[in-house]
Amino acid sequence: MGFDFAQIDGILNARSIAIVGASNSPMKFGGMLTASQLAMGFAGSVYLVNPNEEEILGHKAYPDLLSLPETPDLVYVVIPANRSMEVLEQCGQRGVKGVVMIPAGFREVSEEGKDLEKEALRLAHQGGFRIIGPNCFGIYNPRNRLTLLPGVDFSTTPGDVAFLSQSGGFSTHVVRLSQSLGLRFSALVSYGNGVDIDAPDLLRYFGRDPQTRVIGAYLEGVRDGRAFLDALKEAASEKPVVLWKVGKAATAQQAVMSHTGSLAGSAEIWEAALRQTRAIQVSGIDEICDVLLALRHLGWKPGRRLLVSGGGGGLGANAADLAAPAGLEIPPLNGGTGRKLTEILSRAGAVVSNPLDIGTPLLPLPMFEATMREAAASPNTDVLIFDLAMNFAMRMAGGEEGLYQVADVLTRVREESGKPVVTVLYSRACDDDDLEPERILRQMRSKLLEKGVAVFPSMRRAMRAIALVN
Amino acid sequence: MGFDFAQIDGILNARSIAIVGASNSPMKFGGMLTASQLAMGFAGSVYLVNPNEEEILGHKAYPDLLSLPETPDLVYVVIPANRSMEVLEQCGQRGVKGVVMIPAGFREVSEEGKDLEKEALRLAHQGGFRIIGPNCFGIYNPRNRLTLLPGVDFSTTPGDVAFLSQSGGFSTHVVRLSQSLGLRFSALVSYGNGVDIDAPDLLRYFGRDPQTRVIGAYLEGVRDGRAFLDALKEAASEKPVVLWKVGKAATAQQAVMSHTGSLAGSAEIWEAALRQTRAIQVSGIDEICDVLLALRHLGWKPGRRLLVSGGGGGLGANAADLAAPAGLEIPPLNGGTGRKLTEILSRAGAVVSNPLDIGTPLLPLPMFEATMREAAASPNTDVLIFDLAMNFAMRMAGGEEGLYQVADVLTRVREESGKPVVTVLYSRACDDDDLEPERILRQMRSKLLEKGVAVFPSMRRAMRAIALVN
Repeated sequence: MGFDFAQIDGILNARSIAIVGASNSPMKFGGMLTASQLAMGFAGSVYLVNPNEEEILGHKAYPDLLSLPETPDLVYVVIPANRSMEVLEQCGQRGVKGVVMIPAGFREVSEEGKDLEKEALRLAHQGGFRIIGPNCFGIYNPRNRLTLLPGVDFSTTPGDVAFLSQSGGFSTHVVRLSQSLGLRFSALVSYGNGVDIDAPDLLRYFGRDPQTRVIGAYLEGVRDGRAFLDALKEAASEKPVVLWKVGKAATAQQAVMSHTGSLAGSAEIWEAALRQTRAIQVSGIDEICDVLLALRHLGWKPGRRLLVSGGGGGLGANAADLAAPAGLEIPPLNGGTGRKLTEILSRAGAVVSNPLDIGTPLLPLPMFEATMREAAASPNTDVLIFDLAMNFAMRMAGGEEGLYQVADVLTRVREESGKPVVTVLYSRACDDDDLEPERILRQMRSKLLEKGVAVFPSMRRAMRAIALVN
Repeated sequence: MGFDFAQIDGILNARSIAIVGASNSPMKFGGMLTASQLAMGFAGSVYLVNPNEEEILGHKAYPDLLSLPETPDLVYVVIPANRSMEVLEQCGQRGVKGVVMIPAGFREVSEEGKDLEKEALRLAHQGGFRIIGPNCFGIYNPRNRLTLLPGVDFSTTPGDVAFLSQSGGFSTHVVRLSQSLGLRFSALVSYGNGVDIDAPDLLRYFGRDPQTRVIGAYLEGVRDGRAFLDALKEAASEKPVVLWKVGKAATAQQAVMSHTGSLAGSAEIWEAALRQTRAIQVSGIDEICDVLLALRHLGWKPGRRLLVSGGGGGLGANAADLAAPAGLEIPPLNGGTGRKLTEILSRAGAVVSNPLDIGTPLLPLPMFEATMREAAASPNTDVLIFDLAMNFAMRMAGGEEGLYQVADVLTRVREESGKPVVTVLYSRACDDDDLEPERILRQMRSKLLEKGVAVFPSMRRAMRAIALVN
């Protein structure tokens, strides 16, 4: 079946779901999904289907799809592969819009599995529904509160980052790591074997989805290289796409090639095609999340000229050493900026250059604000970085409330200057039971992110992310 | 003055100190140091000196060094540069062993400052004491509870990592970041301008210090390249030295050269000299800390052949993609190991290869232990990695207590196999006020570190650190 925006939209925004294979057992995938989905508070009806149960986690259980009082928009299949065809037939009979097939045991394991997939696709054609999966973890959509297989702790706050992932487990890590960086999702789809709705469909969908501002994708193999590149070009002409295609390492490549065989030998075509689009290639889960964060707060191609500021010479040297290999510049201050900063910081023992050392944590806040304003205003500044060494900043501000005032200064400068402002907030945690600094750090991060100031967990990650979005 | 182990040892392990410039004001360096030092609970007498105060933070204040009831081992000078010579004269009169000169305003700012430094050195010669600084943050030694300028939250648990740092502020970041990774210090010295005791002396000292197993160093400039390399060779013949010399970037290099001029043009000599020693060059604060951690738990040259395990294919692909560029190998399983693992994992939907996907979080713990034991035992395994995706591991273990049982399995395997075991523990934190996962993560990390299992905050950092110690 071809790409159909409305069909995918209907599935992702389902208002009623059935879980076939729902279970009371926390030791079964069906039990995990049921518990997670109930805890997330799905915004609609949830029907639990299991012929061997009367009640599941306090909710009525139905013997099969045919006995449900209404036709659900979306059916989750969480029973073994070989028993799932019967359910797909019932899906066709009931006229559901979509099916998420969780179980493994298809193409990825055997010839019989491949045949089962073909049969599933045939039943979908016949029944007029679309399939996500099999061998996947499903859909996370904070708007209607669909969640991935074990995603009970996912945020219910919608955002504007979309993600598609071939791997189920990996997609849950992406959600958690992204959340801890302050990202929120429009939707995430773990599509597994992609027997029907595949990566190209999801790329096209998120490219057109008005809720989505940036797209991330994790791919292990690509079945149809041409179709994928076309979809990628289309999506990336609408909004930036961050792409991790694993398999650059020889061992990984072998695995991927034996899996799909399609893009073998066309690495150059791939690279060339990507260069023409707003697609950014990354590797590693941290890099994916960092680049999504950078795109949200710095935008596309913010520029490579950094003004790096902070307290103490060491952090500036750190930044300078990391910037050059990343292809970023820390240009000298121009005369005007240098003069103004020298005036402002004259009494503070600062080193007025780039990197800019504001010197003492005892700098009064109005002086700090004037400094940041001048630093951002410089015509040589594309991106202003302030290394928010927590301890330094807290001392500067005289405690927690003052720290938030430092955040306010940075968000004001970001707003007034219109230039991207990046901060680095290293974890400051000391002892195991000393969670107070962690709480303050998160509050600080939220305050900054809310107003568009990017927060990275290290200067290295900040530099790499800025380089990649340029 | 030449290198003298006992002199430096006496200073670092001082049993009585005086703070000249002690203050009630939290807005002065002297006030910060006094408050930090009192809060740390220095294991000996602390004399506070300030002619304008009767009492400082509830303790008697003395007008000058001459009026103290005993001669302190160590004097902290926290008054402006131009007024500090008088204090040094008194240090000579009292016969103190060492002086830490905190203030800036010397060689780094002007010719007058340079002259002041010469005068300080002359007074030290004349008075028979040694100087650390000026323009530094002092000494952190958890054994006698000396602390750096603003280091009130440093751990009081001694460890076996020594650190020397030209930058004061940077050294406090190193302590905090290292602590959050589970490292503990034998001692740390911020030596600033190094007018007397300089980097070569500290390298030699820590090389011979029986409390120190690994040495880290942060350098901005080197005054005497030959002396430094000789000291580095000596120290690195005793134990590994992790070295970050900033100034690889053109802008930073310019600054360093104009500062010291000594190592200009000798980059090749430098590199060649380092290759002959157990010195590891790094860049960035995270890399310093990660390599110190790797050295403690993996030792020197543990080998490049990794067995990477975890739950789900995505994390394995992540590892494979990151290993190759780092120069690490993920070799195929040999026949014997493959057979045994297939037997153990037959029912679990695992993918028995390297990377090894243990498949389901519902794997019973004895099966997990047997798997890890075989994986470590393989003759192709130099280092065993288990990607401890928190959520996966917790589900696997059925909650917090079970999670610690997973840690026990890994520490047992580490002990029994004698091979290094590395885990990756990504932060799992979601909402700002959801600190419980953070608490559990730290407990888990402490349990692993205590028994010699290394814990890194990401696979990328683990790979990079393993590569660097090889």
